Amino acid sequence: MLMLKRRLQELRQRLIKEKVGAVWVSDAANISYLSGFTNFSETEREAYIFVGKDFAYLISDARYTEAVKKQVSHLTLFERGHKNPTEKLLKKHEVAILGIEENSLTVQEFKFIKKHFKKIKHFEISRSIKTKEEISNIEKACKIGDLAFEYMLKKLRIGISEKEIANDLENFIKEKNCEFSFSPIIAFGKNSAIPHHQTGPSTLFVRSGQKGQFVLFDFGVKYENYCSDMTRTIVFGKPNEKQKKIYDAVLEAQQRAVEAIEQGERQAAKIFKAAGIDIPHSLGHGIGLQVHEHPSLSPKSKEVLKEGMVFSIEPGIYLPDFGGVRIEDLFVLEKNGLRKLTQASVKIKII
Amino acid sequence: MLMLKRRLQELRQRLIKEKVGAVWVSDAANISYLSGFTNFSETEREAYIFVGKDFAYLISDARYTEAVKKQVSHLTLFERGHKNPTEKLLKKHEVAILGIEENSLTVQEFKFIKKHFKKIKHFEISRSIKTKEEISNIEKACKIGDLAFEYMLKKLRIGISEKEIANDLENFIKEKNCEFSFSPIIAFGKNSAIPHHQTGPSTLFVRSGQKGQFVLFDFGVKYENYCSDMTRTIVFGKPNEKQKKIYDAVLEAQQRAVEAIEQGERQAAKIFKAAGIDIPHSLGHGIGLQVHEHPSLSPKSKEVLKEGMVFSIEPGIYLPDFGGVRIEDLFVLEKNGLRKLTQASVKIKII
Repeated sequence: MLMLKRRLQELRQRLIKEKVGAVWVSDAANISYLSGFTNFSETEREAYIFVGKDFAYLISDARYTEAVKKQVSHLTLFERGHKNPTEKLLKKHEVAILGIEENSLTVQEFKFIKKHFKKIKHFEISRSIKTKEEISNIEKACKIGDLAFEYMLKKLRIGISEKEIANDLENFIKEKNCEFSFSPIIAFGKNSAIPHHQTGPSTLFVRSGQKGQFVLFDFGVKYENYCSDMTRTIVFGKPNEKQKKIYDAVLEAQQRAVEAIEQGERQAAKIFKAAGIDIPHSLGHGIGLQVHEHPSLSPKSKEVLKEGMVFSIEPGIYLPDFGGVRIEDLFVLEKNGLRKLTQASVKIKII
Repeated sequence: MLMLKRRLQELRQRLIKEKVGAVWVSDAANISYLSGFTNFSETEREAYIFVGKDFAYLISDARYTEAVKKQVSHLTLFERGHKNPTEKLLKKHEVAILGIEENSLTVQEFKFIKKHFKKIKHFEISRSIKTKEEISNIEKACKIGDLAFEYMLKKLRIGISEKEIANDLENFIKEKNCEFSFSPIIAFGKNSAIPHHQTGPSTLFVRSGQKGQFVLFDFGVKYENYCSDMTRTIVFGKPNEKQKKIYDAVLEAQQRAVEAIEQGERQAAKIFKAAGIDIPHSLGHGIGLQVHEHPSLSPKSKEVLKEGMVFSIEPGIYLPDFGGVRIEDLFVLEKNGLRKLTQASVKIKII
């Protein structure tokens, strides 16, 4: 409660500082962040938050009224409905300059809102710098992820499918009263060459005389709504030289990126470059209420790492029809450098 | 494959008819619908489709290249990346009039795109009229839902929690090689008064001398990416008069809405009215690749029901601190009237 009031207060201070009369929040994660209410859909627009200097509304509909009344006391509930259109509220608070989230608000919503305001501009609600409590939640999620990884390793056997591993993983996580932060990627053999492989019916096998196959696990857990994210690639069977070489190259890339940050580099684009390999996706991403948040560690990113940010470093090499390796860990940037939140060993594991 | 080619062809015919040079598709469900590729995130923007008279691109990034190449052959893959920005593609195809989905495209995306086109207008990709194959998939999803409901009824016992029922349900559905179409709502007792209750730790109990409690199940299954959706409210223990009265009122409302359609009413708003009770949410919604699609059966809807549409009819009455009842079934509108796809009995069930 205190935390939520502080977030609201900070938002209002920014309104004053940036000379914005009010802000219209549409992003689902920001609505959770500001309201503390986490049951709105992430894919459908079920709520907004509308905050000015002297008002703060949570706008939703009758499906949520009972629950919101019980859980949210620092915002005024506006129950929109057939007889109580959102327009009523907009008319009541026609401030001169409205802040919107341009990366979330749709063109249709924009057209609806703009009639009521002289000027509309982008307003960013940043969640990238985390409080101690937020970091602690992510850390707890990471710990459960570490245990889940150990558990999955024990489940690997000839004949088991990616999907079965994913189901075992889900049951393990649920027993810990957690849920997935995203649909896990379990990729066997050549499937590991697809960075976002869709976990499916492929099974583990060992052909006589052949070398081992990669098994890539990319998964995360939500603890108190905060996400973890980790990737490990192991070899089921004896690895061949090429597999070992790729693995080492990815691990070194991760170490180079970490060293660059430790040595003071804070520019996301330069950290990407420091990793020194040609990664076909971003080197990393912030994480928190959402599994992908700011900052983005991509080669064109203009973001700068700051104390309190939590992010992944996850280089990967993918060779079509051969296989791929990705190693992903979460780090928090602290005063004295990086602290690693995921603890599972990154040494090549052979099962 | 044939079906996907036909969808693309139909889209192109509409471009010509509506004098739109090309359409920029951003909605994730529409991207699945047109590409057949279902592994893009529903919450993050990972792909677009860009179709003109003589080009049809699926725009994504290297994380998906391998998979898209294998699964999508009727669209040209444009792999956007650090060295291959989307702008390149837009410059190559600067048609005069571009169609966008105003209910999906964000203000930020709009600003990025608009530089390349003289005129931009809303373009709707409608999925509301289903083919036989789509209806058959929804029907199969409904059948699994019916079985799952029977299964859950057997699991009800004093002391079990909503969350445990939801977990049992998920395991049952997974065994059928399906997944949830949305996070299920299991609501015990007073929780049933919250239309979108968050399934939680509440447990079933019977206090001596007291009457029964409502148990509301609202859940759905995905079969071949097509969703089912069904709500049943039962009484655990002996119902009291008020509970029976509410139940009957909701069931009658559903029957009145069904009768109105059977008698030829096709206006969504009038069907809502025909139900005859004050429902605090929409009376129903279309369903398909997404659990909520067009048409909306809300009192302000301007939509008109047509043959081939599949939708829910789900009236509800909710009494805070007492409990609520919702009964939801799926129907397809056929030449000769409504056909019900969900088969579980709507007669009041007492356990």
